[in-house]
Amino acid sequence: MPDRVVVIGGNAAGMTAASRAKRLAPDLDVTILEASDFISYSICGVPYYLSGQVARHQELIRYTPETLLEERGIRARTGVVAEEVLAGRRRVACREVSAGREFEVEYDKLVIATGYRPRLPSIEGCGLANVFTVSRLEDGLLIGEAIGQSGARSAAIVGAGYIGLMMAHALRQRGLEVLLFDRNSHVFSQLDDEMAELVQGELRRQGVQLHLESEVRALEGEGGAFRAVRVGREQFPADLALVDVGVRPGTGLAEASGIPLGLSGAIDVDDRGQTQLPGIYAAGNCAETRHLVSGKPVFSALGTTAAKQGRAVGENLAGRRSTFSGTLETSIEKVFDLSIARTGLTLRQALRDGFEARAVQISSRDRAVYYPGSAPMHVRLVFEKRNGRLLGGQIVGSDAAAKRIDTLVTALTAGMDLRQLSQLDLAYAPPSGTLWDPILIAANVALRAD
Amino acid sequence: MPDRVVVIGGNAAGMTAASRAKRLAPDLDVTILEASDFISYSICGVPYYLSGQVARHQELIRYTPETLLEERGIRARTGVVAEEVLAGRRRVACREVSAGREFEVEYDKLVIATGYRPRLPSIEGCGLANVFTVSRLEDGLLIGEAIGQSGARSAAIVGAGYIGLMMAHALRQRGLEVLLFDRNSHVFSQLDDEMAELVQGELRRQGVQLHLESEVRALEGEGGAFRAVRVGREQFPADLALVDVGVRPGTGLAEASGIPLGLSGAIDVDDRGQTQLPGIYAAGNCAETRHLVSGKPVFSALGTTAAKQGRAVGENLAGRRSTFSGTLETSIEKVFDLSIARTGLTLRQALRDGFEARAVQISSRDRAVYYPGSAPMHVRLVFEKRNGRLLGGQIVGSDAAAKRIDTLVTALTAGMDLRQLSQLDLAYAPPSGTLWDPILIAANVALRAD
Repeated sequence: MPDRVVVIGGNAAGMTAASRAKRLAPDLDVTILEASDFISYSICGVPYYLSGQVARHQELIRYTPETLLEERGIRARTGVVAEEVLAGRRRVACREVSAGREFEVEYDKLVIATGYRPRLPSIEGCGLANVFTVSRLEDGLLIGEAIGQSGARSAAIVGAGYIGLMMAHALRQRGLEVLLFDRNSHVFSQLDDEMAELVQGELRRQGVQLHLESEVRALEGEGGAFRAVRVGREQFPADLALVDVGVRPGTGLAEASGIPLGLSGAIDVDDRGQTQLPGIYAAGNCAETRHLVSGKPVFSALGTTAAKQGRAVGENLAGRRSTFSGTLETSIEKVFDLSIARTGLTLRQALRDGFEARAVQISSRDRAVYYPGSAPMHVRLVFEKRNGRLLGGQIVGSDAAAKRIDTLVTALTAGMDLRQLSQLDLAYAPPSGTLWDPILIAANVALRAD
Repeated sequence: MPDRVVVIGGNAAGMTAASRAKRLAPDLDVTILEASDFISYSICGVPYYLSGQVARHQELIRYTPETLLEERGIRARTGVVAEEVLAGRRRVACREVSAGREFEVEYDKLVIATGYRPRLPSIEGCGLANVFTVSRLEDGLLIGEAIGQSGARSAAIVGAGYIGLMMAHALRQRGLEVLLFDRNSHVFSQLDDEMAELVQGELRRQGVQLHLESEVRALEGEGGAFRAVRVGREQFPADLALVDVGVRPGTGLAEASGIPLGLSGAIDVDDRGQTQLPGIYAAGNCAETRHLVSGKPVFSALGTTAAKQGRAVGENLAGRRSTFSGTLETSIEKVFDLSIARTGLTLRQALRDGFEARAVQISSRDRAVYYPGSAPMHVRLVFEKRNGRLLGGQIVGSDAAAKRIDTLVTALTAGMDLRQLSQLDLAYAPPSGTLWDPILIAANVALRAD
């Protein structure tokens, strides 16, 4: 009888682990248990569904349970919550969301891929109707209905993080008034302030009502439905509220089952993705990983990291020996006409982590200045004072400019210093860049500052 | 009295060397001698001038001799040919192009930055009117006049190299019929054939009459002006001809002056840019450099390499100790709606250089498939069989996709292998990429093939 693999969670990490295992070892009997109604979708695509750029939510879905079984030979059961792993008996205690029926599923090998959960602030009103978070495709559908059917015309966004910024963009594109609140002095704390200011300029230019240093004290309602955000004594009315005050690893199942967590609060795994319990793996945003610059254990909420972890676990399930080396917390997002990318440590993070660090920031162009469509491109490098080693980078500019963060990702991974960075033979043609690539300019400026 | 620095050649390498030296050591007396009528222009911009995307040739010029003197304190004399370096007397024998007047210029330190020269095929008719090469801004002006004033409506391009392809694009955009001839079975030998085929498809889609395996035997004329290209016994009439059968280092002055050349045929320099003669530097396309993968001495015709060499020489002129480490021959160019990028070794080059190499090639998307504007992106990796070390890469896709070659440039510079490449934490958001970046997909495919 073939090994029974059970994967809890049917998105980036879980789906990749299941697919990879089944591809390499077709005899495996692979089952996915998913609490929500959907598997294998792009959560990153939800803002483009809400903005109207993607017409149907189905476009965001790669596999349904039916096509997954047919094309990959993998069973998926949606609407099933895994409540506890009974590790001694190699079973998972489950509950059907709709009928409430309880049952157990046997496994030989188990993968926990339960992802992340949105945090909620400890304020009144988070349970009101028309208060949303965004972590699942269902959230997108519900917000879409609040706009489409119920005709919401304004949105209050609490928290200007990754999701808050994307949603500000999407809802504004959809024609809503958008009020964006953050208690910090700058948006998106994953950027240094000097870069965040560029983003704030763009938000204001696009008509977002930006309220910084504004701590939301309560979400106020009327008849059980959200009506206004309260900041100090002021009320800001809106038709819906969207909360983005951070995320945490989805470790409820692990905790209920005695599977140890790591220092970051995510599930403790080795570099092959194995938890401390035999035969039980964890992958994706619920599993801890290592930061490649600081060396510290971290919880990452990125799909890219989740997919790579899932791939390694899938290969290990199939009997290979595969490892995942860690994350730089690289992210990129489009906020109106600016894209924002970051990798490694910000100056703030580097100083906090004990590095003697400094940063330089330059502005150049993404294409030859005479080439049609040439636009500004801003590059920030964070580096160690004593030896010029690169610690992180940030780029703000067009979509294509921001994606050039990958050059810094690769340089960081290789442990390059400013001198090595300044010598890179980067590509140039007038439609794609400048003779002196902005990354080279930044490295040369940093070498002078060094 | 301050040191007198004389720089022969007023473009990428020469201009950068002069500017950098003067900035670091403002007391230096810096003079540029330039044979043509222009200094400090973007030769890469000429196709965009000819296509009409850049309206005035002046937009391609960064400094005129007047603004250079005013803003940077550097003298430039155009229309002056350096005929011989009299190294014993530290003088350069010069001749004015217009008046023919001969004179000498004294130097304490000299920089030779005479660039590259277009090769001409050893066939009849290269001296006819309306036969052009493209290596200087003047060439662009002359071709522009042949189209604008003289009303040329068709162009025969001999050689489908870097310049030939760019000109095919530019002239077609300008509305000319374009006939493109190459004696090889594929265009652009700097790509492997499988990638070149993608480019050939695009050329044909855009109405370029592509004649491969077609050796041009003669350029035929009437009354001293070009009339037709002859291939075998066939004649192909056209109003102008453009020849791109390769380039060579501009070493006439060095050879006339007894300055030794290297194995590549370019001027022999150390990593600081010093020739074998004291006080004489060479930088840019006339100077030899080292290939960072093969380790071999090479002649590079790239502006990016020239600028970096010039910068190092400029710093050395100012008393610093600066080196240039070498080239990957990274290039990128836009051919109609496809951009083509390459770095390191092609499979053909790797095998020729004695590597046990192989290649994989994949096709993916440059953005999430559901995101508007998502387009195909093709990645080819060349790697060493025994250890998976990356030897080179090629990308064909949109402008932005092709610029992602920089990730491979950085990986190559760091000596990464396929496994390291496959773990890179590259950025993803639907408008800028795919969850699995095409470079990661290619690395994973190569690992399986390994």
